[in-house]
Amino acid sequence: MRVPPNVSAAAYAQALAEFAQAIGGEWVFTSDADLDLYRDAFSPFLNEPEERIASGALAPLSTEQVQQIVRIANKYRIPLYPISTGRNLGYGGSAPAYSGSVVLDLKRMNRILEVAPDEMLARAQTGVTTQALNNAAAAHGLFYPPDPGSQTVSTIGGNVATCAGGLRGLKYGVTRNYVLGLTVALATGEIIRTGGRLWKDVAGYDLTRLITGSEGTLGVITEVTVALLPDPSTSRTGLAYFDTLAQAGRAVAGILAAGVIPATLEFLDRKCMDAVEQYAHLGLHSDAGALLLFGDDGDEVAVARSFERIAAACADSGAITVQTAGDATESEALLTARRCTLPALSRLGSLTILEDASVPRPRLAEMVARIDAIAAQHQVTMATFGHAGDGNLHPTCVLESAEDTEGIARAERAFADVFGTAIELGGTITGEHGVGAAKLPYLGQRLGTEQMALLRRIKTAFDPAGILNPGKLGS
Amino acid sequence: MRVPPNVSAAAYAQALAEFAQAIGGEWVFTSDADLDLYRDAFSPFLNEPEERIASGALAPLSTEQVQQIVRIANKYRIPLYPISTGRNLGYGGSAPAYSGSVVLDLKRMNRILEVAPDEMLARAQTGVTTQALNNAAAAHGLFYPPDPGSQTVSTIGGNVATCAGGLRGLKYGVTRNYVLGLTVALATGEIIRTGGRLWKDVAGYDLTRLITGSEGTLGVITEVTVALLPDPSTSRTGLAYFDTLAQAGRAVAGILAAGVIPATLEFLDRKCMDAVEQYAHLGLHSDAGALLLFGDDGDEVAVARSFERIAAACADSGAITVQTAGDATESEALLTARRCTLPALSRLGSLTILEDASVPRPRLAEMVARIDAIAAQHQVTMATFGHAGDGNLHPTCVLESAEDTEGIARAERAFADVFGTAIELGGTITGEHGVGAAKLPYLGQRLGTEQMALLRRIKTAFDPAGILNPGKLGS
Repeated sequence: MRVPPNVSAAAYAQALAEFAQAIGGEWVFTSDADLDLYRDAFSPFLNEPEERIASGALAPLSTEQVQQIVRIANKYRIPLYPISTGRNLGYGGSAPAYSGSVVLDLKRMNRILEVAPDEMLARAQTGVTTQALNNAAAAHGLFYPPDPGSQTVSTIGGNVATCAGGLRGLKYGVTRNYVLGLTVALATGEIIRTGGRLWKDVAGYDLTRLITGSEGTLGVITEVTVALLPDPSTSRTGLAYFDTLAQAGRAVAGILAAGVIPATLEFLDRKCMDAVEQYAHLGLHSDAGALLLFGDDGDEVAVARSFERIAAACADSGAITVQTAGDATESEALLTARRCTLPALSRLGSLTILEDASVPRPRLAEMVARIDAIAAQHQVTMATFGHAGDGNLHPTCVLESAEDTEGIARAERAFADVFGTAIELGGTITGEHGVGAAKLPYLGQRLGTEQMALLRRIKTAFDPAGILNPGKLGS
Repeated sequence: MRVPPNVSAAAYAQALAEFAQAIGGEWVFTSDADLDLYRDAFSPFLNEPEERIASGALAPLSTEQVQQIVRIANKYRIPLYPISTGRNLGYGGSAPAYSGSVVLDLKRMNRILEVAPDEMLARAQTGVTTQALNNAAAAHGLFYPPDPGSQTVSTIGGNVATCAGGLRGLKYGVTRNYVLGLTVALATGEIIRTGGRLWKDVAGYDLTRLITGSEGTLGVITEVTVALLPDPSTSRTGLAYFDTLAQAGRAVAGILAAGVIPATLEFLDRKCMDAVEQYAHLGLHSDAGALLLFGDDGDEVAVARSFERIAAACADSGAITVQTAGDATESEALLTARRCTLPALSRLGSLTILEDASVPRPRLAEMVARIDAIAAQHQVTMATFGHAGDGNLHPTCVLESAEDTEGIARAERAFADVFGTAIELGGTITGEHGVGAAKLPYLGQRLGTEQMALLRRIKTAFDPAGILNPGKLGS
């Protein structure tokens, strides 16, 4: 039996017995075979996966069961790692547990509790996938605006824990803009209900937004109430090719200056385009230096007018060609280029390290140029794509072999420079994937000593024994 | 010389000398005449204004001066009450200091530091009025979406401190949706910079949103960076009369069900209409039971289409008449009815007590009926208006005499019932004005004991000596 650090074997055996009593023995896992299933979300920049096997996993079904688990864990000082699907994006290391800890697996908590069309909201258990939530909303002519990309895998609880961003951030905002209320089991064993069903509620500190993005370190989110919006009647997509990313950047500036806030505004650099073309054979332009994908939704006439302005701004910035989709099928085809970028890059090697940083929108092209220079300096291959509308970009490093420890070390040094450059340009070390364990060493550089100390004091106010996700935010 | 509680006269004299050294003696006020100017924001439900005179007032000019003040105050344990214009709305008692405390007057910090049109943001010192910020944005074809009503008086720092809502909440959201970054002097004397210039930034806990709405109890906000949006090309207003508020509520449901999210959706009950008509002679319908004011902005054709749907939804719900403005002048005339509601009610007596609560949107008419019954039961006059789109309403009590202590006591009991009813209907005790000192006794009823205890632990993490706004949130 594996035992959590600083806990005696006898105490752990006692805790396991109490966990079994609380949630049923069949939902307490301790065999190597079972625990092996909880290893899949790892970062190449953390220690070896073998060292990060949990000593147990618990799969509760309700808020009350989570509360009982937390109380027992608090009593025996057992570190808990809440996950839903556990597949954090980008190797940030938000999900993985360290050796000996206990995984709190929330994926059985996957019931949609309510869709209230007259209040334009939905309430769901933490483990409901973003896609399932959207399907339930669609049945009422509504939708959940944040689109974190990995809709089918990501869960609403995970979205909230990381304040997930995604493809529609510029026009619609990110997860925090839609979270109305949370049910949270505190590390000290209380259940609190923050916020509720209202857009406007300023009674007390905004714990709803504080817990959103706190990466499971301040409490275990068990239920989420989110705002929905009416499904837009029309949605269209288009793309433009440019010789350089700098031109694409000028087109973005021109689009916004024309008063258009597009629902989608994504870019791929030349390396991403090559990878996508090799993977999906979409007939992308073979000489262009950058691709800009744009989309808008809403009233049909308004969207048509937006598209005229977008096309004009692209042409004014020297676009090689501008294409717009005629219908939904063509729109989906254009979006494929963006949606398959990561799988396409993954095919280029056996280890793909996706990263995440943001810079002020006007500095996007400069940032990508700096990334290219950093990659060259550290002799690694990096391709960059991302959200041109909000300056959030994903430099992605591809290594031929996952065993190439030398290459991994070079990649790590390169990313350290990338994060430093993002901060230098007025940006941040993570726009939407989170800090996790892997980026915690860079957080102080972004926030400063005083704010780091304050983060720790807040963590202590929520979790005095430090049992929730130790080694991550607030540690 | 008045002296703060639990501070010796000698220590206070020493503190005043240090304050004078930090910001210049001419900006340290201690005379009764000067301090009298800081008494204007009070609540009839708090103790007598004479008991709430400060022992000093300090008017710094910069973040650095605020930092020095906080350090000195922390050393001598002197309670600080940060204000900008100090005119909190609705007698919530967010602004006033208690007897002997020191007012930190931030209204000299009124410089707009930057408008960056290419990043669609503005950066301003805390004491800039919402109107001045909007004027600066307008020069670049941009606007700051939250409209807290009292634009000319309210400041951006005050907006952030209360997470101000206002008339455009349904479509555009509230203050927290637009705050990108804050410069904050902590009670412990450090300056922190939360967030920055980005929509997407998840590096660390979301202190930006935690401090937004914390009513000056977690730190002194000295600078604010807010997101702006392109000015909508068209803006139109209309109104509809109904026999009953229940019909107006059904119209609101119908408008949203038709997929329209209007920029404005306000209601007045019959009592408010009477007051407005008597005050402004606008020719409002004399028999209707409720008035619904609606507005939308954006693309001209899209707005026209929204208006068709809104008019249809109103007609379907039994509207007596529906009027739409032909141009901007007519739109402003229609908006006058809403904008002058509070001054109109104020004319009816010599004490007007404006309150603030929210309920889920479908329960608005039920809530107003309950308010009417509560007013009758407690023998007070209450009229209700507010934001029909987000369920945020303003029951307003009018008393003939400000000396009517019996009437004030009846009003206080009536409002206690109103808040209890809002909670019972799934709502909250304050949608946008804040908790302040006056509503703190009701907060536990809304949040529960566990969350109240957590609020206090958070307050302590920020302000261990309790020098910022004691007697308010976190106390």
